[in-house]
Amino acid sequence: MKKKDYKSTLSVQEGIEPPAQVSPYFSKKRGKVLTVDDYVTGILKGDRTILSRAITWVESTNPEHFAQAQAIIERVLPYSGNSLRIGITGVPGVGKSTFIEAFGKYVTGIGGKLAVLAIDPSSERTKGSILGDKTRMEELSVDENAFIRPSPSGQTLGGVARKTRETIILCEAAGFDVIVVETVGVGQSETVVKSMVDFFLLLMLSGAGDELQGIKRGIMEMADAIVINKADGDNIKQATFAQAQYQSAMKLFPPHESGWEVPVMTCSAIEKRDIDKIWLMIKAYEEKMLENGFFDEQRDRQLIRIFKEWIDDHLKLNFYHKIDVKEMMEELIPKIRAKEITPYRAGSLILGLL
Amino acid sequence: MKKKDYKSTLSVQEGIEPPAQVSPYFSKKRGKVLTVDDYVTGILKGDRTILSRAITWVESTNPEHFAQAQAIIERVLPYSGNSLRIGITGVPGVGKSTFIEAFGKYVTGIGGKLAVLAIDPSSERTKGSILGDKTRMEELSVDENAFIRPSPSGQTLGGVARKTRETIILCEAAGFDVIVVETVGVGQSETVVKSMVDFFLLLMLSGAGDELQGIKRGIMEMADAIVINKADGDNIKQATFAQAQYQSAMKLFPPHESGWEVPVMTCSAIEKRDIDKIWLMIKAYEEKMLENGFFDEQRDRQLIRIFKEWIDDHLKLNFYHKIDVKEMMEELIPKIRAKEITPYRAGSLILGLL
Repeated sequence: MKKKDYKSTLSVQEGIEPPAQVSPYFSKKRGKVLTVDDYVTGILKGDRTILSRAITWVESTNPEHFAQAQAIIERVLPYSGNSLRIGITGVPGVGKSTFIEAFGKYVTGIGGKLAVLAIDPSSERTKGSILGDKTRMEELSVDENAFIRPSPSGQTLGGVARKTRETIILCEAAGFDVIVVETVGVGQSETVVKSMVDFFLLLMLSGAGDELQGIKRGIMEMADAIVINKADGDNIKQATFAQAQYQSAMKLFPPHESGWEVPVMTCSAIEKRDIDKIWLMIKAYEEKMLENGFFDEQRDRQLIRIFKEWIDDHLKLNFYHKIDVKEMMEELIPKIRAKEITPYRAGSLILGLL
Repeated sequence: MKKKDYKSTLSVQEGIEPPAQVSPYFSKKRGKVLTVDDYVTGILKGDRTILSRAITWVESTNPEHFAQAQAIIERVLPYSGNSLRIGITGVPGVGKSTFIEAFGKYVTGIGGKLAVLAIDPSSERTKGSILGDKTRMEELSVDENAFIRPSPSGQTLGGVARKTRETIILCEAAGFDVIVVETVGVGQSETVVKSMVDFFLLLMLSGAGDELQGIKRGIMEMADAIVINKADGDNIKQATFAQAQYQSAMKLFPPHESGWEVPVMTCSAIEKRDIDKIWLMIKAYEEKMLENGFFDEQRDRQLIRIFKEWIDDHLKLNFYHKIDVKEMMEELIPKIRAKEITPYRAGSLILGLL
């Protein structure tokens, strides 16, 4: 059994003491300019106001704030990693907010501390289903053991991903032991969420027709579980039927790389029914993956991939920002299309600019 | 209807005349050192010996040969593009060689000219199922309207991909109107094949148990058709059952981006049964995709993607070949794992070397 530093328990703050040299922090003094030490102490104590302010810095485009955010993250990094990170996706209308509210209340009800983050690079597409407004999670937003943070705005998907990953670190250091990252099941952001969570849950509806049109090919392949929501009222029979259909379909498809059998379950988020079963299923996954080493392996791979992707992205960014590169690209692409030049030779010409 | 330069017909050589200034080519003079003009003329006339020698140059690591190959490709590029490019994958044991033999004989039987290429970057893994030996396709290998070329050896997947893409260009210029690219359904090479073909066919066996273990998640998502092979003898009933299962399973999954409904068919390659139906299905796909524009769109996207990937790959290659980059990577990765540094900060440090 290979358990590195991840603790599979809901009490993760024990044994963590803020560094001794840190000045005491007074939470009443809102106006005070906080030092990095103040932030670190506040976060490690689980102060939500301080946590929020630190996240604002992580999300800031101001270089000074950014630098300070990096300093904070570096300090709390050793205290991070002790949460179970759950990605949740599904098309608009599937009931993600209601599900997260029910799921979150269940988790806090059994003594957990839960943070809800969102990835949504294209805010136009949200149609109000992603948590732009906390009001959609009325109960959870006033739960003192829950912390809801809307999606960082604008920028590239890579930028949003970095901010969310760093926010996870801060939330973990602040003692949140379940992190939910929400995304809309219509685009590229699923791959990004998949790269930062331990478990990826796909919410669906019964009736595999129109609802599926929004789900991209490939997203179902990434799921660690499929949950059919709105299994309530007149819909129960249909949901159970859909469950059976998906269950037999999943058996035809290639196995999960970890050996996990992807379950298909039903629930009613609005009636808060079978949420406990989903939690137990996720905990069973966690236990099994800790046992066989996949849990830590996946986290390790995620970290190294982020590192390498960051380098690759910036190599490209630096290169494509050169004016002559842009001009040459615009010249070459029509020539490639017209079969006047192979893409390889065009590539060599561009790289000749280096 | 948007048909660019692709001709959906089996006679593609008509109207193509070799450039007038080219010196006459004598196919008997095997020993003669051929000029680029000789190669171009030979290829456009469909001379298989010349074609083979040109492909050898494409595959060569000798810089002089490489340069000459590029010159040939650039000259024949305008005559390429007129084939239907079909990717075929499946785990070892599924009967790929037998299928390609039956399929190829059918195509040449109706007047087509067929080239068979292979992508297999990891030759250790082949278990003899990929066409290292032409002897596995006894009939096809002596068919004068078929051309079989084993996988280019060694090197990176990117290198093999480039060679295969350039070989497709040469084969098309030589008048082959159906190009089959074969790969083993166990690794990354499927993505590469998918990026160079118009149609991607997944061969499977009935009995969705052990045979599937070798298929990677994601490959089924890429398929434009699933064909269950070995539907013969005692196996017919089982194959028909598997077909029905996959058919209903496919309906549950997200639709193909082109609007194509991915069919599930059965055949017996060894008894050459229902091969005609598969050909007709592929032709129906071709017709529909030419009609709705997806065919040309996909080829355009493939070209531009190759171009951009080539640049990205070489930016990385150039960067990672610096000695200090390598050393720093080796230093930083353990620190990232030990949570002493975030992957973002590590990335910034590395890029500081530029």
